[in-house]
Amino acid sequence: MTITRTSLRWNGWGPENQPELLPDSAPQWDWMRDNLGMARLPATKAKPLAEIKLAPCRLSETVLDRLRAIVGAEQVKIDDYERAFHARGKSYHDLLYVRAGKLDMAPDAVAYPRNADEVLALVKLASDEDIALIPFGGGSSVVGGINALAKSLGGPVLTLDTTLMTRVIQIDKIAMTATLEAGIYGPALEAALQKHGVTLAHYPQSFEYSTLGGWIAARGAGQQSNRYGKAEKWLVSAKLATPKGFWTTEATPASAAGPNLNQLVAGSEGTLGVICEATVKIHEIPARKDYRGYLFKDFASGVEAARRINHADIPVAMVRLSDAAETYFFQAFSSSTSPTSLKARLQRAYLRFRGFGDSPCVMLIGHEGDAETVTWAQTRSEKICTALGAMKLGTGPGERWYHGRFRSPDMRDPMLDHGVGIDTLETSTRWSNIGNLREKVVAAIEGAIAANLPEPGGKGIVMAHVSHSYPDGASLYFTFVFPRQLDREIEQWQAIKRAASDALLENKGTISHHHGVGLDHVPWVAEEKGPIGFDVLKTIKREMDPKGVMNPGKLLG
Amino acid sequence: MTITRTSLRWNGWGPENQPELLPDSAPQWDWMRDNLGMARLPATKAKPLAEIKLAPCRLSETVLDRLRAIVGAEQVKIDDYERAFHARGKSYHDLLYVRAGKLDMAPDAVAYPRNADEVLALVKLASDEDIALIPFGGGSSVVGGINALAKSLGGPVLTLDTTLMTRVIQIDKIAMTATLEAGIYGPALEAALQKHGVTLAHYPQSFEYSTLGGWIAARGAGQQSNRYGKAEKWLVSAKLATPKGFWTTEATPASAAGPNLNQLVAGSEGTLGVICEATVKIHEIPARKDYRGYLFKDFASGVEAARRINHADIPVAMVRLSDAAETYFFQAFSSSTSPTSLKARLQRAYLRFRGFGDSPCVMLIGHEGDAETVTWAQTRSEKICTALGAMKLGTGPGERWYHGRFRSPDMRDPMLDHGVGIDTLETSTRWSNIGNLREKVVAAIEGAIAANLPEPGGKGIVMAHVSHSYPDGASLYFTFVFPRQLDREIEQWQAIKRAASDALLENKGTISHHHGVGLDHVPWVAEEKGPIGFDVLKTIKREMDPKGVMNPGKLLG
Repeated sequence: MTITRTSLRWNGWGPENQPELLPDSAPQWDWMRDNLGMARLPATKAKPLAEIKLAPCRLSETVLDRLRAIVGAEQVKIDDYERAFHARGKSYHDLLYVRAGKLDMAPDAVAYPRNADEVLALVKLASDEDIALIPFGGGSSVVGGINALAKSLGGPVLTLDTTLMTRVIQIDKIAMTATLEAGIYGPALEAALQKHGVTLAHYPQSFEYSTLGGWIAARGAGQQSNRYGKAEKWLVSAKLATPKGFWTTEATPASAAGPNLNQLVAGSEGTLGVICEATVKIHEIPARKDYRGYLFKDFASGVEAARRINHADIPVAMVRLSDAAETYFFQAFSSSTSPTSLKARLQRAYLRFRGFGDSPCVMLIGHEGDAETVTWAQTRSEKICTALGAMKLGTGPGERWYHGRFRSPDMRDPMLDHGVGIDTLETSTRWSNIGNLREKVVAAIEGAIAANLPEPGGKGIVMAHVSHSYPDGASLYFTFVFPRQLDREIEQWQAIKRAASDALLENKGTISHHHGVGLDHVPWVAEEKGPIGFDVLKTIKREMDPKGVMNPGKLLG
Repeated sequence: MTITRTSLRWNGWGPENQPELLPDSAPQWDWMRDNLGMARLPATKAKPLAEIKLAPCRLSETVLDRLRAIVGAEQVKIDDYERAFHARGKSYHDLLYVRAGKLDMAPDAVAYPRNADEVLALVKLASDEDIALIPFGGGSSVVGGINALAKSLGGPVLTLDTTLMTRVIQIDKIAMTATLEAGIYGPALEAALQKHGVTLAHYPQSFEYSTLGGWIAARGAGQQSNRYGKAEKWLVSAKLATPKGFWTTEATPASAAGPNLNQLVAGSEGTLGVICEATVKIHEIPARKDYRGYLFKDFASGVEAARRINHADIPVAMVRLSDAAETYFFQAFSSSTSPTSLKARLQRAYLRFRGFGDSPCVMLIGHEGDAETVTWAQTRSEKICTALGAMKLGTGPGERWYHGRFRSPDMRDPMLDHGVGIDTLETSTRWSNIGNLREKVVAAIEGAIAANLPEPGGKGIVMAHVSHSYPDGASLYFTFVFPRQLDREIEQWQAIKRAASDALLENKGTISHHHGVGLDHVPWVAEEKGPIGFDVLKTIKREMDPKGVMNPGKLLG
């Protein structure tokens, strides 16, 4: 089971036909216009595909025939829709291009193999014929990870769409591992596993539109990574098709037989080979889930709670702490209550009475597991929160978040239609540096937005949350909303991205916690890995892919 | 603080002067002789160093002077004791050589650098002059990992002893990480950390005589790895001196900026560079420790308990399950009660009455942490054990084990003095394969011992335990005791080792769970990694160490 390409937006998020989320008359638009200091929200609709002319397919009929011989004629696509759909990923940066009809980067053809042998044949053909090969799962990358970049300007590009590869190969309910083909989408994967009472429980925000192989390739994180782990943690073994042949990585737990090469596969971003199959750790479907909210007086006390929960051995599925700006934004933007209404003013007065200033921060804590463990763990995590002065908000906010946990990206297309820019970026750092890093990156983004405004009086909204935590530190996820400079959208975004990324590296954050490197983070990854580490990666790449056809330009530049 | 070389046995385990563990009159020798089917236990004492002539040092005075210029004259050693001490590790195989006075493999000199800069200068000198460089910490490798092997027969060898590098560089009690120089021995490391209320809690059996750098290089496991993790899990970042310069690996938690190169350092076994410093995850000193025993009717129900404990989110420090042979051996060998005594017969009668057959298996479960968590977790793990029919043995066996947890290796020298061979090997596999793998490897070892006996009627004792467990599987640790073929000791060992290793690979076990590859596992590591994986490792090695001077022959052959 997969998702028909034409049922999805080629230049946006989710199904082609979806109900309008925010009609032009919705009060949120007024709120946003005011808070971004904009005189009006311009209409900035995307260009329809029918009005865009793609360059002719650069693959010869001979090569196309060889592709058809490998996967079957019906699995080789050269129509405009398929080429446009596979041109770029889903970053704000990508959408600026595709919405404007700039499809220079579209692949010349898209092949849909149905098994690992077909993938290997495609990889070998690409290597023999010097064709750039782009492994593509859901295409949800927000860092340019699947963009159809040629080896050199004007060279041919073939995208390999894995989404017909969806078989469950084995479920081992004693070892609690499952082996699946890597092109399976999140919902199909969970349906296939849950039929047997088990779950991978990897739920990134992109869950509905991303695949197993993509999660591994980008070292992705599900929202409940505290319990289920990031991709690099739940990956047991992988089978890749590489220009040198199949590469099946070692599968034994915690082996000391040299370095663990699964850790080279996780994060390889299609530059070494195509992940065809993966064995992953699975779990019993949790008998109970408990998601609830706490209000902290400030970000620092919330971070301290997250740290203590992590260091106290408490089994927790998720600890998600919004900073004051994010807490305020979601309250204001999602609530039917206007921030200036009597109800909102009374709420704020109550908080002040309870000793909360103007910067309260919401934390959502999720517990999953058997009933006894969840009860015990919930009691323990709550005790840590209240000892740090947090106010209990009960299960309401947790359940609301859970219900809408995949819906945030839906807001982006409407915003882009209204002249508003929105982007996100994420990092991680050690616990002792979380507060500092958040402040520095927020300041860098705010500064860059202020320096790149379309009109006087404009301003950005910059907010952050902690959503994944570890013994030594945690992630930080930044969301920023800003008035677009319609005449220099790309340059505006580049200025903000550069300022934020420089601030990350200067302040000991990683350039990415779970989005990956793709194209967008290439300028920073060499510094992060250091000269020798980066050389090691380039050496491995040269060894595995001597012609350099595998996802060229990604990860290593 | 380090350990003076001359205070340690150069050809055995532990201090030079240690009380005799088992005098010739101890009843255990009779028991062992009978159980190994030997007519008598021969006296097989080791050759004293004074009777052994080492080959002359092959390093020129010019090179020695350059070494002295780097680390100081007093830190370059060419005397027989230092060369003999650094010739080989502590495997049974190594001891056969050194006890017989075969020191062909001794290094030509030993240098003791005092900081990373001196290490780098030594690495560069070795690379420039084409001298094999052997990084050496405690020298406790049991797989030939630090053996003084030249690049080619007769070539020069320099051993780099890291044990003067013992500084604590930083302790971050918020992030709970510590940065230390890598030559620090276990006890000194714990003393330095525990002074600040924190612990790494990495306690391998070799704890007293092994170093931080060695633990990382070999992907070692402490006995409480369920709580504290193997080296590859607690390693945050490392600084290596390589022929290309310093390599400092990325330090941010769970980064998605490409593959995690720390996972190449863990398990690199000195073949890429010398680990000079490491940042590691630390913990508060646990307020409470609870170790207790359970008796299972058979190995399978014990494995099932270990698996359920692991899959039930129960915070556990250690789950250690002996098979029936090991349970019987330790009971018989360590007890003052003879296995044929009235007391022992009454114990067996009671067990039969309780429905236990002749193959009961002891499990020790350790919990560490705050009092509340330990109590909760202990109750939960006990419930799983009793539900599977286990008999509670209370804290006595747990405390006895804890008290003697580093003492098993002390038994080996006395055994070697009495014509008895003893060796261990270890692996891991997925839960659904534990029973099968144990049976196949036990049978392979028993078969090889039976085929290589010094006299008719002899036999081996082969036993196993599970001691480290993971979501997808667990380790198996085999100990085997056998009458030595004094005229062909090496060949006898090779035959047993080959049979066991072949059985591991044929039955989906890893060639090593925590000892590493060294020299002894080289013939199997290529098969385990597969042709492409092994090529990747060799490529990295060539890139980092083009002259091939770093610990030649180890890991990759």
